Formats: sequence, structure tokens, C-alpha cells
Amino acid sequence: MNRSLPKSADPMPGHPVYRYERQVEWGDCDPAGIVFYPRYLAMFDANTAGLFASVGLPIPELIRKHGIVGMPLVDVQAKFYRPSRFGDCITIESWIEEWGRAKVIVGHRILRDEQLAVQGREIRVWVASDPEEETRMQARPIPQEVIDRFR
Amino acid sequence: MNRSLPKSADPMPGHPVYRYERQVEWGDCDPAGIVFYPRYLAMFDANTAGLFASVGLPIPELIRKHGIVGMPLVDVQAKFYRPSRFGDCITIESWIEEWGRAKVIVGHRILRDEQLAVQGREIRVWVASDPEEETRMQARPIPQEVIDRFR
Amino acid sequence: MNRSLPKSADPMPGHPVYRYERQVEWGDCDPAGIVFYPRYLAMFDANTAGLFASVGLPIPELIRKHGIVGMPLVDVQAKFYRPSRFGDCITIESWIEEWGRAKVIVGHRILRDEQLAVQGREIRVWVASDPEEETRMQARPIPQEVIDRFR
Amino acid sequence: MNRSLPKSADPMPGHPVYRYERQVEWGDCDPAGIVFYPRYLAMFDANTAGLFASVGLPIPELIRKHGIVGMPLVDVQAKFYRPSRFGDCITIESWIEEWGRAKVIVGHRILRDEQLAVQGREIRVWVASDPEEETRMQARPIPQEVIDRFR
Repeated sequence: MNRSLPKSADPMPGHPVYRYERQVEWGDCDPAGIVFYPRYLAMFDANTAGLFASVGLPIPELIRKHGIVGMPLVDVQAKFYRPSRFGDCITIESWIEEWGRAKVIVGHRILRDEQLAVQGREIRVWVASDPEEETRMQARPIPQEVIDRFR
Repeated sequence: MNRSLPKSADPMPGHPVYRYERQVEWGDCDPAGIVFYPRYLAMFDANTAGLFASVGLPIPELIRKHGIVGMPLVDVQAKFYRPSRFGDCITIESWIEEWGRAKVIVGHRILRDEQLAVQGREIRVWVASDPEEETRMQARPIPQEVIDRFR
Repeated sequence: MNRSLPKSADPMPGHPVYRYERQVEWGDCDPAGIVFYPRYLAMFDANTAGLFASVGLPIPELIRKHGIVGMPLVDVQAKFYRPSRFGDCITIESWIEEWGRAKVIVGHRILRDEQLAVQGREIRVWVASDPEEETRMQARPIPQEVIDRFR
Repeated sequence: MNRSLPKSADPMPGHPVYRYERQVEWGDCDPAGIVFYPRYLAMFDANTAGLFASVGLPIPELIRKHGIVGMPLVDVQAKFYRPSRFGDCITIESWIEEWGRAKVIVGHRILRDEQLAVQGREIRVWVASDPEEETRMQARPIPQEVIDRFR
């Protein structure tokens, strides 16, 4: 993996990429002065929501319209290339890597100073409550109209 | 992977496994009523500290004694098999999977009702501050006396 | 306020006090090496749940039985007397200070080395969903049977 | 307190107010579907940093220049008037209420739909490491040049 991709390089040519710029907060960091790693995963999660909203599909609306309870994770991977510190400006980029029947793979990367800082991938499932038992969740096929918005 | 390993099954026979039991807190959970996934990674992180402390190597002491700034991540993977909810009792198990020169692979699994809920693996690096520039970090060989404690 | 109350001093004589001991985690702390203050409030929240569970009223059960959506805050105050660091052992103590019709005041204090580290007070409301509009919440009188459990 | 102040009303006429608009994230919310209250305090903390940066005093620079370890809290109060949910757009406003010798009172309010959602106040201390013992912290007088930037 090229660790110094310029910010402008498109991680997924021809597909929508959602970019969000934010500063690293004091509360994101640990006693070593760098971002506490689970915070990056929280950034992935928020950016997945940003990606969907950016194509006109805010997740709160998907929940209301399609009766899903969310898109919980079945798998996550992340590689950390360089640390970030309080006050650093980072860019979080997210895109769809692949659609399955009920699954979606979301790619993420975080850039600092135009260099790759974190690379990640989430596998999420489109789930609704089980009508027979509210606390059980069931995978459902992702509606084609949702997938089409990303084309 | 066997998803219903009994709680008693040893994930790494012959090696120390640190087990910590806790209840899922309200603040761990999201609007779907299940644990917000980055919280599991925070549990991995805390349990890695528990594992080291359990063999007589509390990390605050390692920091003082060996001049490290911590053991930041270079890689993390997690698979989520079943959700947990507010009030559920979960057991987090952690062990060393492998030692490298400056790296260590830590295995984790989280059990609920004696069934596998989450499986994870962190790759961490033993790092000290660069003496020339405090905000840079340098990987260092893991002292043999640290490794020996896990044998 | 006496800042060095011994651990054994009872903050509310004659009333149940819930005590929970935990170690400060790496992820609780900030770049100054001390607990990031909102984390103390998360500890208050979790300990309120522990207090209710300790008298036989686990909150998940109250939610199911009484149709409440939780006990959201209307007010919180905290005073911070001494910082705590990664690995410190702290004790979180919580008790009911006062019952109102739909409100309850929960007192908290956090001790480190038998000295007062944090003192706090939450005012919470017993709320249910508005039957006419699910996303609105309505305050409800706290059932006497709930209050009686703390006597 | 007027709970429906328009967004444009100035909480502290003649003094700089830092405003930050953000969306409520999935990970900010709890199983009741509303923001988990300690998250609001984390927003206060981040907005205090934003306020200082907005007058040309980024906190990372204050740390380097003045040798402080941060501005830890001694007191916090918050009142919660209306809940916010995933996807809601909120505005966090912060300003200096008062300067003491080593203390500063920071006021905060969070608006949703131009109505007051949360009101808060932090008392922070300007602290440096004790030169005799690095893990002890000492209050220091706030430099006049810092105070002057807010005039």
C-alpha cells in the first residue's frame, strides 16, 4: 500500500467518496498524546453515516422508511500507519467497496498532512427487527434503490 | 470458527489467558440497543492492560521502567457474531498469540451466555519516544524479561 | 466539604450506597495523563444503574416492566478535587439523595486512596414515550414500589 | 432562563463567542435514541479548545509556549432542556464568563432548531507540572496576554 497517497488521489475512481475534515480533539487522545485507537473506529462509523447522507440517504430516514434498526458490523479491519495528535487536522474518506445481498463493505482512510494515517474496512449488514421477537435482528436484502444511489 | 465454544474452553492452551467479566453499560449501547462497536475495541484495549497486569507487568510500571510511551496499534481486526445489550454480562478473554522483535499479537474474544460474541486480534508495537524529537515514536525490541513472564 | 473522608464513611447514613471499584483505563485518560472529565460522568451513569440493580431493580427490567425509556438527566453537577491516572484504583459510590414525584436526585462520589477525588449529583427524570408520538418523551410519576426498595 | 432564545441572540454581548455546528452521531446516542449525556460534556471540552483557537490561541500552542499540561476542570454544571437524536443538527456556543487569577469560567450552550437544548458552565484551572514531581500539577496565574486576546 502506498503510504503517501496525495489527498486528491481517488480511492475508488468513478464512485462517490465522502470526505470529512476535522481536528483531533483532546478527548480523542490518550496519555501517549496520540488518538486512542477505538476513536478512529468511531470516526469510521460516523463517516459511513456521512457517506450515505451525501448521496441523499440519511440513515435516520433509511431507518424510518425501510424499518431497519441500523447497519451493525460483522467485521472490521484497520491498519494504523502514523499517529495523530491533539489539534492535528485529519481528513476521513469513505466509500462503498462492494455490495452483497444483505451486506455492504465500506472502505475508509484517514489522511494527515496528505499522507495515509489509517486505512480501514467495515462489513455491515442491513438488519431489521425480527417481527416475532423484537430483540432479535434479521438480515434483509439491501433495496436496489439504495444501491442505485451510489452509482 | 466454532461460534459456541464453552466459556471454559481455553483459547490458547498452556498460555496465560486473562478473563474479565463486566456488564454492558447503557453508555456502551447505541440507538439499536446494542453495543456500539468501537466500544468493543476499547474493551480489547483495557483487557490487554489487564493481561499484562495479570502476569505482574502493569503497563504504568512498564512505561516507567522501560521508557516506553505505550504499545500503540498497527493493526486490528474484529468479527462480530452476536450483539450484546444493556445489562448483559460478558466475559472478555485476552492472551498473547505471538511475539515479534518489537511487535506483539494479542488475541481477544468476548463471550456472552457462554457463546462467542466477538473475536479480535490486535498487533501492537513496543515504542519509545525518539530521543531527538519527543513527538516522534520509535519501535524498540521487546525485552526478553517481559516475554518470559508469559511463559 | 471534607476532602479526605475515609472510604468507610457513609455518605448517606441509613440509606443504601452502591460501591464499585475499578481501575482507571488507558482509554479513560487524556494527553495530560489524567482522566478525561466526561469519563467521570459516564462512571456516574453506570453507577446509577448499579445502584438500582443493587436493590433488585435492574434498569433493563424497569424499562420492560414500567414502559419507561430510561431516566434521562435534567441537571448534573460535579466537582473535581484530585486527578486520577491510568492504573489508579478508584471507588465510585452512589446513593439516592432525594425522590420527587417524577424526579430523583442521585449523589455520587469517587474516592482514590481513601480521599475524595470527585463529587457529583445528577437529577434524573422517570420518562416514558408519548403514546401519541413515539419520539416525544413524557415525565411520569415514579412508582412507589420503586421508591420503597431503597428504604 | 429563556429556553427558546433565537440562535442569533448573543449569550455574552461584546465578547467573542465560538459557534460550532455538527450533526449528532449514531455513536453519541444511547438506547433511548438520545444523546448519552456525558457526550455533551465532551462537546463542551472540544468547544473550549475551539474558542481558544478562534482568538488565535490554539491549546496545543499554549501547552508548548506556557509549559501548561492543560486546563483541567474543577467544576462543571449542565442543564438539559430538550433531547437531541441521531442526525439532528446542533450548534455548540462557548464563551468566557469570567477570568480569575488561575481559573477561568467557560459558558456553553447547545441549540437545536434554534431552541436551547443544553446549558453548561465549566470552571477550569491553568496548571503546569510541579517541577519537583512531574505527576503533580500546580495552578499558575493565567498570563495577561492570554486574557487580552478575548477582549
